[in-house]
Amino acid sequence: MNVKKGIKQLKNGKPILIYDSSDREGETDIVAPAKHTNPNTILRMRRDGGGLICVAIPPKAAEKLNLKYTSDILKQTGYKFNKKVPYDQRSSFSIWVNHKDTYTGITDKDRSKTAKELSKAVETTINKENYNFEKQFRAPGHVPILRAAKGLTKNRTGQTELSIEMAQKANITPAMVLCEMLDNKTGEALPKEKAIEYGEKNNIPFLTGSQIKNY
Amino acid sequence: MNVKKGIKQLKNGKPILIYDSSDREGETDIVAPAKHTNPNTILRMRRDGGGLICVAIPPKAAEKLNLKYTSDILKQTGYKFNKKVPYDQRSSFSIWVNHKDTYTGITDKDRSKTAKELSKAVETTINKENYNFEKQFRAPGHVPILRAAKGLTKNRTGQTELSIEMAQKANITPAMVLCEMLDNKTGEALPKEKAIEYGEKNNIPFLTGSQIKNY
Repeated sequence: MNVKKGIKQLKNGKPILIYDSSDREGETDIVAPAKHTNPNTILRMRRDGGGLICVAIPPKAAEKLNLKYTSDILKQTGYKFNKKVPYDQRSSFSIWVNHKDTYTGITDKDRSKTAKELSKAVETTINKENYNFEKQFRAPGHVPILRAAKGLTKNRTGQTELSIEMAQKANITPAMVLCEMLDNKTGEALPKEKAIEYGEKNNIPFLTGSQIKNY
Repeated sequence: MNVKKGIKQLKNGKPILIYDSSDREGETDIVAPAKHTNPNTILRMRRDGGGLICVAIPPKAAEKLNLKYTSDILKQTGYKFNKKVPYDQRSSFSIWVNHKDTYTGITDKDRSKTAKELSKAVETTINKENYNFEKQFRAPGHVPILRAAKGLTKNRTGQTELSIEMAQKANITPAMVLCEMLDNKTGEALPKEKAIEYGEKNNIPFLTGSQIKNY
């Protein structure tokens, strides 16, 4: 039921909330189609979410666009960061970018432009047309790209994979802006109950990882 | 006068506001000593600032800790991003990290822990003691490190250099958390006048780049 509502919402270019699970990050993210991002999307995320505003893309598009995992890039240049991510096997971070037509890269207008253009890059790649990523973007920049794991939620059940799976179910371009919801009182992630409350108040469907996986 | 107030404020572990100049980013950052960061510092930055929460460090410490420019790291692994930063010669971004004792890395508690520990890393290095950065941090993470330019504001007048110069004037550990102030109405940077207003309301000294350079 929630998933159906979520699919409809995404088809309309609107945000949803995704909670992973209590035995993982225990975190809710605001998730929206990158293609329909506007400055208000970014404003909502930074004001009501408060975390990092990232763009998740599918593994195949990442490969074609040569968007490697940052962990691999760091290894390749001799860094030896051996501490494991506490809640998963690896971090999803690829590189951080700004679209070439942004100025500082950080304003709501700029981050929204970068997100939209990332969606265009993914779409172009899916349509098997050529796309020169390095000509369209600057790196390093202010928007982190998240690379979903191969096999998606079969192999990793983070918001990255869950949001790409939701995009596929909704049959929209699989490039999703997302941002963690933080609590203003405890210094921790926003508790699940408060995220549900926020969703009800703002008419944004709240979905859990297991609802998405079992749909 | 403003600079004197700013120095006093930093000595007390409290934040200041730094505006670069109208012919550069035209942006005000909230800037605070990383050593005294607590979850409320991060909360203020994400709620009242809204940009990226970064930690600026001096060039010498960056070199000793082997914190390279991300632009160099990307070049070294074969990337060819040739688009220039519009407002300066280069971006200050080094790598993005989480301290090993954080969980997701994004909560106010976690980012505050990472900032404090970055200050400790800089301090240890300045005291010419050994510091194994790769054992203390995970990368990629959620807190970008900014590398101030050699010669500081003689060579670059970004908030990165200005905040390190303020730390030196205040004689505190030169590791500074900072975050851009964004406007909630226009999708742009917060206008200078509004930043000044915010400073007056919250008792936070507002300093311009030229005031700091000419002090």
